[in-house]
Amino acid sequence: MIHYKNPLLVLGCVPEWEDKILLCKRAIEPRRGYWTVPAGFMEIGETLQNAAARECREEALADVEIQSLLAVVSVTHAHQVHVMFRARLLAPQFGAGIESLEVGLYTEADIPWDDLAFPSGEFTLRKFFADRAAGRDDHHFVELTRPMKY
Amino acid sequence: MIHYKNPLLVLGCVPEWEDKILLCKRAIEPRRGYWTVPAGFMEIGETLQNAAARECREEALADVEIQSLLAVVSVTHAHQVHVMFRARLLAPQFGAGIESLEVGLYTEADIPWDDLAFPSGEFTLRKFFADRAAGRDDHHFVELTRPMKY
Repeated sequence: MIHYKNPLLVLGCVPEWEDKILLCKRAIEPRRGYWTVPAGFMEIGETLQNAAARECREEALADVEIQSLLAVVSVTHAHQVHVMFRARLLAPQFGAGIESLEVGLYTEADIPWDDLAFPSGEFTLRKFFADRAAGRDDHHFVELTRPMKY
Repeated sequence: MIHYKNPLLVLGCVPEWEDKILLCKRAIEPRRGYWTVPAGFMEIGETLQNAAARECREEALADVEIQSLLAVVSVTHAHQVHVMFRARLLAPQFGAGIESLEVGLYTEADIPWDDLAFPSGEFTLRKFFADRAAGRDDHHFVELTRPMKY
């Protein structure tokens, strides 16, 4: 049965506004109370970009323009592939959707690096800031096989 | 139920050997007798690159080194996302796997353009040759919503 042997797609983005990016504190398990970029399972009938923008609307009540591809993470132990884009926040307007406890704009220095929900989110954010500092617009593949620590 | 509302990943590659690329004539439905790049459903436990290389081994009995990202096709009506890489054929050795009737190396001019199995494969090949001619190594997103003509 196909649904038992195929990985699922998780789509997300790093919404940027001036020198800050938008993060959500999760209101649901797994990792309730920890921080994440807006991301979630892609649904049928969507493009990857549509899915990433929808998740941002749902979790952060924010409208974005999806931009370049940033990260593709094979999360093999979780049977997921996470695809992350850069995004432009259309206005500095946002709020906590039902899956979020809190949503905010953070500079690189202010990001709660020790309280991020998922390794794929940390990888995505590290690459985002490294590329931004270097003036690059690259995409990055990685496999994260380590079991999550929780 | 998640498996009814999430798209599946199809991974493939364009294996290159000198000025030619490797194509397979399909032995199975849909589109039996038509030509495709090696591609198939990603399985759990694989990275995207592993899946693309495995499909090439299974369908074309050929070993490849997966290279840069070439195309990401949202095939919304089929509930699939096709991810295609460039690849280097490690040796000019190949054959028809059980899902193929025939496998061969083709120059751009010799490709059976009118007998390609899937629009995503045609998109992938057009971008491959356009980028190669221009000396580029880009990746391309597209949504193919048109119903297949068969």
